[in-house]
Amino acid sequence: MDVEALAENRISFDDFEEVDIRVGRIESAAPIEDSDKLARLEVDVGIETRQVVAGIKQLHDLDELPGTKVVLLANMETAELFGYESNGMVLAAGEEADLLTTHGDAEPGTKIR
Amino acid sequence: MDVEALAENRISFDDFEEVDIRVGRIESAAPIEDSDKLARLEVDVGIETRQVVAGIKQLHDLDELPGTKVVLLANMETAELFGYESNGMVLAAGEEADLLTTHGDAEPGTKIR
Repeated sequence: MDVEALAENRISFDDFEEVDIRVGRIESAAPIEDSDKLARLEVDVGIETRQVVAGIKQLHDLDELPGTKVVLLANMETAELFGYESNGMVLAAGEEADLLTTHGDAEPGTKIR
Repeated sequence: MDVEALAENRISFDDFEEVDIRVGRIESAAPIEDSDKLARLEVDVGIETRQVVAGIKQLHDLDELPGTKVVLLANMETAELFGYESNGMVLAAGEEADLLTTHGDAEPGTKIR
């Protein structure tokens, strides 16, 4: 496997506190018909449910996703994609979009540090 | 469960690219004798092995940790704690330190976005 070079810049703990990452749970997943890659997810983040557009249409079986624990960058700027607002980014590893989760039973909304 | 308020500030994708998060694998875990909370881990991040000090001594069975997949903030400023350099931060959810992982088989070094 090719591994991307590690970042040369370093960040402080305070810098990282600007990044709000949460446990989430996918409630629904639907393809965006006009897009080859994008799916529209609803993700429970504990105190609200977010609509998130994610590039996983071809990488995951959308029917299998409801109930799946994920990890969400919760304070990303919103964007509009194919007419859908995306409010957050589901975090995943690599080109296969291997979705993040936790080893244990942390509930949606739990803050990650 | 109390859920911390979601961040009001928003960040861009470019801001998030300043944060280098990787899949890692714990190679070893040892208590730091002089500390109640801290353990010293060696974490494979694909192209190197990092020594990381983590506040998980009382929250995890250190003997069980070698081989565990984790997720590492790889470009955190280094710090020295109880005489040990910490080069990165193992990400975990909540006060129980529920360690992050992936659902699939992403290998150490894989970049997370």
